Amino acid sequence: MNTNVFADRVRALQAAMSSHGVQACVVLSSDPHLSEYLPGHWQGRQWLSGFDGSAGTLVVTESDAGLWTDSRYWEQADNDLAGTGITTMRAGAPDVPGPIEWLAATLSAGACISVDGQVLAIRTQRQWQETLAGTGIKLSCDRDLLDDIWAQRPGLPQGTVFEHLPPFACRSRKDNLAAVRTAMERHKADWHWISSLDDIAWLFNLRGNDVPYNPVFLAHALIGKDSARLFVAPGKIPAEIVQALLQDGISIEPYDAVAGALACLAETELLLFDPARTTVGVLASAAFVGKTEALNPTQLLKSCKTDAEVEHVRRTMEHDGAALCDFFAWFEDALGATRITELTIDEKITEARTRRPNFVTPSFGTIAAFNANGAMPHYHATDRSHAEIEGNGLLLIDSGGQYLGGTTDITRVVPVGQVSDAQKRDYTAVLKGNIALSLAVFPRGTMSPLLDTVARMPIWQAGADYGHGTGHGVGYFMNVHEGPQSIAYRATVNPDMAMQPGMITSNEPGLYRPGMWGIRIENLVLAVPAVETEFGEFLKFETLTLCPIDTRCIALDLLTQAERMWLNDYHAEVRRRLLPLVSGPAQDWLIQRTAEI
Amino acid sequence: MNTNVFADRVRALQAAMSSHGVQACVVLSSDPHLSEYLPGHWQGRQWLSGFDGSAGTLVVTESDAGLWTDSRYWEQADNDLAGTGITTMRAGAPDVPGPIEWLAATLSAGACISVDGQVLAIRTQRQWQETLAGTGIKLSCDRDLLDDIWAQRPGLPQGTVFEHLPPFACRSRKDNLAAVRTAMERHKADWHWISSLDDIAWLFNLRGNDVPYNPVFLAHALIGKDSARLFVAPGKIPAEIVQALLQDGISIEPYDAVAGALACLAETELLLFDPARTTVGVLASAAFVGKTEALNPTQLLKSCKTDAEVEHVRRTMEHDGAALCDFFAWFEDALGATRITELTIDEKITEARTRRPNFVTPSFGTIAAFNANGAMPHYHATDRSHAEIEGNGLLLIDSGGQYLGGTTDITRVVPVGQVSDAQKRDYTAVLKGNIALSLAVFPRGTMSPLLDTVARMPIWQAGADYGHGTGHGVGYFMNVHEGPQSIAYRATVNPDMAMQPGMITSNEPGLYRPGMWGIRIENLVLAVPAVETEFGEFLKFETLTLCPIDTRCIALDLLTQAERMWLNDYHAEVRRRLLPLVSGPAQDWLIQRTAEI
Repeated sequence: MNTNVFADRVRALQAAMSSHGVQACVVLSSDPHLSEYLPGHWQGRQWLSGFDGSAGTLVVTESDAGLWTDSRYWEQADNDLAGTGITTMRAGAPDVPGPIEWLAATLSAGACISVDGQVLAIRTQRQWQETLAGTGIKLSCDRDLLDDIWAQRPGLPQGTVFEHLPPFACRSRKDNLAAVRTAMERHKADWHWISSLDDIAWLFNLRGNDVPYNPVFLAHALIGKDSARLFVAPGKIPAEIVQALLQDGISIEPYDAVAGALACLAETELLLFDPARTTVGVLASAAFVGKTEALNPTQLLKSCKTDAEVEHVRRTMEHDGAALCDFFAWFEDALGATRITELTIDEKITEARTRRPNFVTPSFGTIAAFNANGAMPHYHATDRSHAEIEGNGLLLIDSGGQYLGGTTDITRVVPVGQVSDAQKRDYTAVLKGNIALSLAVFPRGTMSPLLDTVARMPIWQAGADYGHGTGHGVGYFMNVHEGPQSIAYRATVNPDMAMQPGMITSNEPGLYRPGMWGIRIENLVLAVPAVETEFGEFLKFETLTLCPIDTRCIALDLLTQAERMWLNDYHAEVRRRLLPLVSGPAQDWLIQRTAEI
Repeated sequence: MNTNVFADRVRALQAAMSSHGVQACVVLSSDPHLSEYLPGHWQGRQWLSGFDGSAGTLVVTESDAGLWTDSRYWEQADNDLAGTGITTMRAGAPDVPGPIEWLAATLSAGACISVDGQVLAIRTQRQWQETLAGTGIKLSCDRDLLDDIWAQRPGLPQGTVFEHLPPFACRSRKDNLAAVRTAMERHKADWHWISSLDDIAWLFNLRGNDVPYNPVFLAHALIGKDSARLFVAPGKIPAEIVQALLQDGISIEPYDAVAGALACLAETELLLFDPARTTVGVLASAAFVGKTEALNPTQLLKSCKTDAEVEHVRRTMEHDGAALCDFFAWFEDALGATRITELTIDEKITEARTRRPNFVTPSFGTIAAFNANGAMPHYHATDRSHAEIEGNGLLLIDSGGQYLGGTTDITRVVPVGQVSDAQKRDYTAVLKGNIALSLAVFPRGTMSPLLDTVARMPIWQAGADYGHGTGHGVGYFMNVHEGPQSIAYRATVNPDMAMQPGMITSNEPGLYRPGMWGIRIENLVLAVPAVETEFGEFLKFETLTLCPIDTRCIALDLLTQAERMWLNDYHAEVRRRLLPLVSGPAQDWLIQRTAEI
């Protein structure tokens, strides 16, 4: 018998399943707010399986256990799950069914699948029920089986809420509420429910520390035509902020008063909610009120940055880029002289950012990945497993900062020792993809997933591809991943994904050769007006991120004249704007790395 | 009062509406087979309105009449509808509602809209019902109001059916039926209904003459597990072909026996039908049988051409290209010496094709459009309205042929006299779009609409766009427009649109400046394997069409080295393959127009 601790936990779950008469349990990577980063209380999948990648679904049946995760994590899951008895299921690979498809094919009619409805999105539940239709398999959403077996389960985070203040906060919460109410009117809604933490933090100009990297706090909100109710644990919001909120017509109620509040909404009223951002558990409480569905209006409102916000972001990008000059100057100097590991890089980059004004925290866990580690797009070095930077190869660094004046996210790949021709060809294909999207012009309102083909074409032409999207929205001192736009060709297109002026999106094509190296070049770009003609209004991208793209890895003969010109122009701009903010070796490094090619 | 003949007809329809107690009537451009080209019997919209574009929906209410048509036809509709009292509705323009949206907003609750269910696709009916939900407006599909008022309505076409025979027919009807039955098994279907004429003609290796340009015949088909029933008017199929069909297990039943046959299918059986290719009227007869829906399996089967078919298409393209060399050599010689109109061009091109082996008919009405006429993408010169080719400008020629060994469709733009810099810039943007798609490499199964961005980008970068798709499927001695693939970024993506090897698609970006000129460069391309790597299987396009792309209209400084190389390689191939098939002035012309740039 397997004596691995995770195997024991899976067996305990199977015992709990048996005592509740269910034949399968699905443990999601999810919480009541459907957040990307989960407080420890909701990291049940990690606790059960030992796999700590950010995305994964654990399915346990009476005799089997499988963990579904996407291509970013296949290698890591194979490593983490060794010895647990849990099988890695390569989600997205051909012939690998999804977890519910698999359960539909595996379980018999009459079987029951248990999943915690408090962390299950309504939209997901609907998809599952469609898959299970006609199989005679039941879905039960009213119990969290982990409660039975997780003795040391962490409590809820206790972070203190703070205000995002002017000059960095450029819109007032009164204006934000008015904009949401205008959208509610369009839907004829009396009430609007919000569970998503970034929507709530944005709406109220509040920030928090309840999850790593995202400056948000645990809360729900219920917006009425002339009331706004914020459900948050007592004591999290300091008294003077409570006072300010009350003055703006916002009442504070306990975090666990949600069910009661929803149950009291009248049958004659209409509640607007977002089925992708509201859980089955929450909505079950809204038993009487009429319901209408749409994307949370806050999603589009916060994605379109104002001119004032963009100006702060431009300043923030200058300091973020200057911090990276400091880091890279140190790195190139220390390389070969000092022992540098992937962990050292994380430390040094964060140190460099910390020295910059208005820096708050990193915006996600730094990825510093050397050679083969770089082939795992979301690899994280740990104390027990990390590489030393030595010999020859490519070092991929993906990092970002939360600043009061914006959120950054940048990936660069730099050479260590000798770089092979094959590595240069791959690097150049990725660079060509990045430049192609940088140079794109498109009608206002173009569906963002359609732009992905443009970035991917040079990589496809090299007979390669990458498993992640090319671009995600980025918040303003807010989550580093936000919607509604998504430059990802596999995304299911919906009208909310239209590109609009003011949207900040990542531009991050990649190419990963398992066991060898990984390449990703990422800038943040802003959608801005390009031209208005008889054919309509066109948008283009302004590249916001300011940091040299290493030219030593380029196969120059593969670049077109236009691509070379883009890169030289970009480097001239980087030099012009960063030079005043760096000194000494960082200044020398900046000048060297922005030299024309 | 308006004494225009079409205004009279609209008034007659309004009287018929009144006598049947309906408040609106929708007259579609559609027939019981949901074909693109309609026999005269179903050209009611043309008869009522006088607008003879291929796409349009006429809506008549008690007090109004509007004709919805897409941007290809806006100018033509404005001209054709002058004096009729019918308003052109610019479908697809911002703030122009669709016809049913318009009716939903215009009519009162309790009103009734009449539409002939015999020509209304089930899928369309569903969309309409969704739009009308909650308005209290009724949709009545059981009557064709034109029967009341159209005294001289044409009868059904009487064309004779013939066999598509080997060597050109490369698959036997037995194999085709077996492939369809395999697909039926996947859907657990006992029966499969087919109303679409190209699906039927392909399945049985039969061809006909019932509509212009498409070699099809009026029929429906009902395929069982071991029976195949073809519903076709008596006498259309010659006795010896009936005999051959019977030997292959195919029975012939009267065209009007459809309703009875469907009504007899048993409750315990399952009927597979395509809601986009079956009408409300037909399905109403299938009252008892169980139903399941999918794209007609024949759609994908016929879109993926076999190697043998592709070989015939390559030979066909050589002859089609040679015919065009004959035509262009004549044209350049005659220009300035003889009076040439847009109509002459149609005649001369068809003459040139007729001299080539295995030519049957044009595959669509030739578009020869000089200067401003070219800005109407589907302009047709008529006896009463056509331009003379003289002075300076651009001449757009879009034409194609039906050959026993394939269907062709090609657009070229050639200079007449002086070409302006602005014209050259537009021409070059379109050429760059065409080349970008020609050079595309993409994972097998990529959704075809996503490829559109690649072709459009150079045109968007010039601040322009075009209102039609970039690529439609093309049949094999069959309809010049077929699915399921569609390189059109506005298309709603569905899994049936995946690009597969063997698909023949058009590559036809364009740019139209109303009142000035129009440009479109169109080749047919074949999806072929590019490379198979650790990242999967990739496809690329082989350009099938062989005809010089006029280099005199190119702004050379706007082409990249790679684009110039593609064009030179293409022209070398065109010269190599066409030279043996032309002589005299055509040979000289070919050599001159394929010169390296």
